[in-house]
Amino acid sequence: MNAETNRPPALGFASDNIAGASPEVAQALVNHSTGQAGAYGSDELSLQVKLKLSEIFERDVEVLLVPTGTAANSLCLSAMTPPWGNIYCHPSSHINNDECGAPEFFSGAKLITIDGPSARLDVERLRDRSREKVGDVHTTQPACVSITQATEVGSLYNLDEIGAIGEVCKANALGYHMDGSRFANALVSLGCTPAQMTWKAGVDALSFGATKNGALAAEAIVLFNPALASELNIRRKRSGHLLSKMRFLSAQMDAYLSDDLWLRNARQANDAARRLASGLAGLKGVEVQGETEANILFCKLDSAIIQALLKAGFGFYHDRWGANIVRFVTSFATTSEDVDHLLKHVRQVVSTLHA
Amino acid sequence: MNAETNRPPALGFASDNIAGASPEVAQALVNHSTGQAGAYGSDELSLQVKLKLSEIFERDVEVLLVPTGTAANSLCLSAMTPPWGNIYCHPSSHINNDECGAPEFFSGAKLITIDGPSARLDVERLRDRSREKVGDVHTTQPACVSITQATEVGSLYNLDEIGAIGEVCKANALGYHMDGSRFANALVSLGCTPAQMTWKAGVDALSFGATKNGALAAEAIVLFNPALASELNIRRKRSGHLLSKMRFLSAQMDAYLSDDLWLRNARQANDAARRLASGLAGLKGVEVQGETEANILFCKLDSAIIQALLKAGFGFYHDRWGANIVRFVTSFATTSEDVDHLLKHVRQVVSTLHA
Amino acid sequence: MNAETNRPPALGFASDNIAGASPEVAQALVNHSTGQAGAYGSDELSLQVKLKLSEIFERDVEVLLVPTGTAANSLCLSAMTPPWGNIYCHPSSHINNDECGAPEFFSGAKLITIDGPSARLDVERLRDRSREKVGDVHTTQPACVSITQATEVGSLYNLDEIGAIGEVCKANALGYHMDGSRFANALVSLGCTPAQMTWKAGVDALSFGATKNGALAAEAIVLFNPALASELNIRRKRSGHLLSKMRFLSAQMDAYLSDDLWLRNARQANDAARRLASGLAGLKGVEVQGETEANILFCKLDSAIIQALLKAGFGFYHDRWGANIVRFVTSFATTSEDVDHLLKHVRQVVSTLHA
Amino acid sequence: MNAETNRPPALGFASDNIAGASPEVAQALVNHSTGQAGAYGSDELSLQVKLKLSEIFERDVEVLLVPTGTAANSLCLSAMTPPWGNIYCHPSSHINNDECGAPEFFSGAKLITIDGPSARLDVERLRDRSREKVGDVHTTQPACVSITQATEVGSLYNLDEIGAIGEVCKANALGYHMDGSRFANALVSLGCTPAQMTWKAGVDALSFGATKNGALAAEAIVLFNPALASELNIRRKRSGHLLSKMRFLSAQMDAYLSDDLWLRNARQANDAARRLASGLAGLKGVEVQGETEANILFCKLDSAIIQALLKAGFGFYHDRWGANIVRFVTSFATTSEDVDHLLKHVRQVVSTLHA
Repeated sequence: MNAETNRPPALGFASDNIAGASPEVAQALVNHSTGQAGAYGSDELSLQVKLKLSEIFERDVEVLLVPTGTAANSLCLSAMTPPWGNIYCHPSSHINNDECGAPEFFSGAKLITIDGPSARLDVERLRDRSREKVGDVHTTQPACVSITQATEVGSLYNLDEIGAIGEVCKANALGYHMDGSRFANALVSLGCTPAQMTWKAGVDALSFGATKNGALAAEAIVLFNPALASELNIRRKRSGHLLSKMRFLSAQMDAYLSDDLWLRNARQANDAARRLASGLAGLKGVEVQGETEANILFCKLDSAIIQALLKAGFGFYHDRWGANIVRFVTSFATTSEDVDHLLKHVRQVVSTLHA
Repeated sequence: MNAETNRPPALGFASDNIAGASPEVAQALVNHSTGQAGAYGSDELSLQVKLKLSEIFERDVEVLLVPTGTAANSLCLSAMTPPWGNIYCHPSSHINNDECGAPEFFSGAKLITIDGPSARLDVERLRDRSREKVGDVHTTQPACVSITQATEVGSLYNLDEIGAIGEVCKANALGYHMDGSRFANALVSLGCTPAQMTWKAGVDALSFGATKNGALAAEAIVLFNPALASELNIRRKRSGHLLSKMRFLSAQMDAYLSDDLWLRNARQANDAARRLASGLAGLKGVEVQGETEANILFCKLDSAIIQALLKAGFGFYHDRWGANIVRFVTSFATTSEDVDHLLKHVRQVVSTLHA
Repeated sequence: MNAETNRPPALGFASDNIAGASPEVAQALVNHSTGQAGAYGSDELSLQVKLKLSEIFERDVEVLLVPTGTAANSLCLSAMTPPWGNIYCHPSSHINNDECGAPEFFSGAKLITIDGPSARLDVERLRDRSREKVGDVHTTQPACVSITQATEVGSLYNLDEIGAIGEVCKANALGYHMDGSRFANALVSLGCTPAQMTWKAGVDALSFGATKNGALAAEAIVLFNPALASELNIRRKRSGHLLSKMRFLSAQMDAYLSDDLWLRNARQANDAARRLASGLAGLKGVEVQGETEANILFCKLDSAIIQALLKAGFGFYHDRWGANIVRFVTSFATTSEDVDHLLKHVRQVVSTLHA
Repeated sequence: MNAETNRPPALGFASDNIAGASPEVAQALVNHSTGQAGAYGSDELSLQVKLKLSEIFERDVEVLLVPTGTAANSLCLSAMTPPWGNIYCHPSSHINNDECGAPEFFSGAKLITIDGPSARLDVERLRDRSREKVGDVHTTQPACVSITQATEVGSLYNLDEIGAIGEVCKANALGYHMDGSRFANALVSLGCTPAQMTWKAGVDALSFGATKNGALAAEAIVLFNPALASELNIRRKRSGHLLSKMRFLSAQMDAYLSDDLWLRNARQANDAARRLASGLAGLKGVEVQGETEANILFCKLDSAIIQALLKAGFGFYHDRWGANIVRFVTSFATTSEDVDHLLKHVRQVVSTLHA
């Protein structure tokens, strides 16, 4: 039994989207479900969210709430590129692999992949690529860059790296987008301010994720370049992402930002991943890969361990990124007990195997 | 003070989207916010919703949940027309006026308006138009029809009219879509079954609205033509409308469909509109227009009455559809006291004016 | 036998696109078919065409040659509207009826029809419509206007009318496009200068047609607003309309503009239409409709006359615009003998019928 | 002076699109420029071209003529993929690099590059890639393959390779497109039949190029899968590529296919390239790269040679594909004298440098 939550240990480590919502977020929906409020974002709460995000980012920001990260990413990108533009991104980025071409659908543009280690695009390659064939009508043209922070494999760009890409964008008149689906996880890990991780490093538009980190379904497009706002307001409606009862997105985001819930949730998820990494380190047949900087952990496990865990009911992805490679994802809802329960099983298998 | 709800009378009659959510719906979100569940619709609750809707419609249906009506409409239409297709709809339809070209964005197709009284498209004109220039490569080609039930002005198609349009669709190989943003309001008013109002009359795809009638943000695409499902599953993701934590849409819809909440809510809204119509009838300076079949009421009011009501804080649209024309919209949250409070004000102004 | 051309009289009056090409245009292709020349418009001849058009329009213009009128129209429009823009045009315009949605495909925008007599859009209705719901994200937004000169029924906008629409465009920040598929026919009929009929009246972009009036397949996009050029250069390539051996479009256009060939051809077509109108006037069972301002003539003919002409092999459209309504189109290749031959047949039928 | 053509030697080797047209093609335009003919492809000549191509390909084929190769490619691809489809192609393919995103614009689909030596995509990698994530709504889906024959670097797929890709397409229900911009050059080099190089190896749709090989501007979409025809007829119009005076495309194609002109032209171009390769082989400071299979030759030249040739007025691309790498392209219009003139200059520089 789980002391923190009074429930049996959770077995799912497949993704942070299998978790539910923080109680504060769910309760906020109940609290705001009565009474009349202006539709389509004209309510008080929506204004309040904008003010809160402006405070958090230490400057006036424009905010558009949408229900999914794919919508946030695709909308941002569509406002930063013409249909014949190039969007530079990492080959393993979510926008390239996991959104079924939504960025292309919203923008018409072409995704050009720029490789680099640990799902971070290489700034030198980006610089070279973004200077090719500029002005040549036979070729799609440089338009913008999108990075994911934390990345799809849980690694982080440090502030220098974010800034270096910002320099390339500035020098070549490229828009700069950050997919912050796991923004909070990256932030608490780096220990910097939201401003440092974004606009101070040149970022124009941010997909500020809340869903994976405690909301039901709520993401904020945060614009540091206010010129993008009016077009995005139209594009949001035109793509069906303007909610009539907008207060229900606002209520989630408001609760998420209140009392540092978003930061506390991210710390819990990251702590759980690190606890898991520590527990796995040094076990026979287990090889933790890379650093565990956010809430995602990759490791190589003996087939026997993988099979035993699956048999015990644990959920996780494996053998997608290579033979015997396993990915564990923790979330705001993952407790120490959940982690220890998993670790106990691993240790049992290991000791059985090597008895 | 409002006996039913223990709150002061509500002053807003501008739209049914200024209401909040039914307590049952809000509570369902809390109930389902803990524990792990499969993402992207692989959860139990999503399956349950599909079964409930199949029961309600008396046949197996395919169901896709999305957060907005614009998404539901645009997705349905995009699966029923090629980019060079014609979508026939009424000039005053929501898809033509109020979705910022979302149907065109999703489909590439052209909206061809077919006029008719009370926001209902005329079946004879539709028949003629859908036979023009078939096969001529110089012209966009007949593809599908979309009707709104209840219409944007609160009127209804009767079953014969829905069926007659269905015949035209069948005869000319057109897809048939129903925008059921206010489906429940129409249903309880006609007193027929959901099956009669849809697939038995030839409808292929339905936008089954819940948001205006008690949900926070949840609409179901209900497919009677299952061949549309696999394409729509992809299109939903590609447009950013596949929620990762799908259970939160499912929870709303499940609560909405439980214990006839959706029907009770619709009856309350319709009753409120009729109560308002009855109360206004015969007052000097007041002219109720058309029948009040669902939850929307149009009337002509003396300017002095309009001004007095606005001054008293009431909210509603006026002078959009003609001089002195006022639209009142009621909702599941509108009580008798709310209506009587409004009526009291009207009567006061009338008696003052004609004293 | 035809004295001017040494061939039997032509029987086709269905359209000006059934004619071939002026000998000067065809010969120019032969003359320029040898030797090497820069590709994609970097040849001398393309520069020369730009200079000729600048002289003709009495100012520097940007020129992009394309093979079809649909391409010219759609490209111009796509550069003057965002995907959520409204393109205002007449219901009977070519872009609305006869291009299979090409303007929508190239731009994403919505065509909003503005009615008016004789295929000319009404400036007052345009003014009203272009001021509706500006800035409302729920609705597609005013973007540009497209008129056809000469219109699809052969009527003309006079200079005041073109200018009045230009005023509306200026006042409401709308782009202004002219579909000049029959530009020369309109010009020689009005007896004004090309400048007066376009940029002096506020036109931003012109589809300057040559194909119907003596070229094989060549249209010039003429830009009075040079800011549109760089985007259009990309859009032309992206839509497959940038010819590698561009000199073959340039050669046609160069020959077309040399020695007033374009004006002479248009006069011949217009004269033929007027000769036909005069010859038909007053005949029993024949009713010429409207004025014959360019090279298109509408008339009402007794069924017996229509049948007799068809039987004699004449080609023309009839009963499309109403019962017994016939459209005759003349071209640069229509001779007096061709017209007289047709008239002779009409008179014969008339005299037989009324003998 | 050039004995074959009675003109000074041509200095341009930059591309085959700097050449003009074969005299037979140009003359055909003159021949067909008088008289009336049905518009939009309803003329006799268009039918004749279809019959000729059916004979050449030894089966009934559907034919659509268009003015550019980019149009031919993009149209074919758009009919073989839904907007969420993957188009597999080589990284250096024309559709990926040189059409400004036209394939994406026409189709909405995503280009997925499959590498391989000499601009030929590797069939094993294709097989693997086309089986990934099939049916997963999060990812764009396998739809079709496009190969270029001859490739963009002048290399060839042999019949086995074309057939092996055809097998992959068949096994995975992928459409199969061939960009035959230099189809004739490949055909005469392989010495096989048109049928063997296309539908017998599984190809569904071919962009049959004529422009580079002697036409002014004419390409044929040749469909071996007739099911694609009706959609393509609409798409051609919708993209502005349906010429009203279609006979002018037909006349070019008819002349091109008559008396083996297309094959003779291709042989002349290939012979010239081989003559050039032979002449360069073994010269000091010159390194011919790969085999010269069609009309494109790559070589590495000492900088001094490059500079001297440029100074002498020769035109060619260099240093695009690597330091000192030079590309020479010959055409139907390149004579032995042209080649010898170039060779003479190279030899002179070489002898001067190494004197």
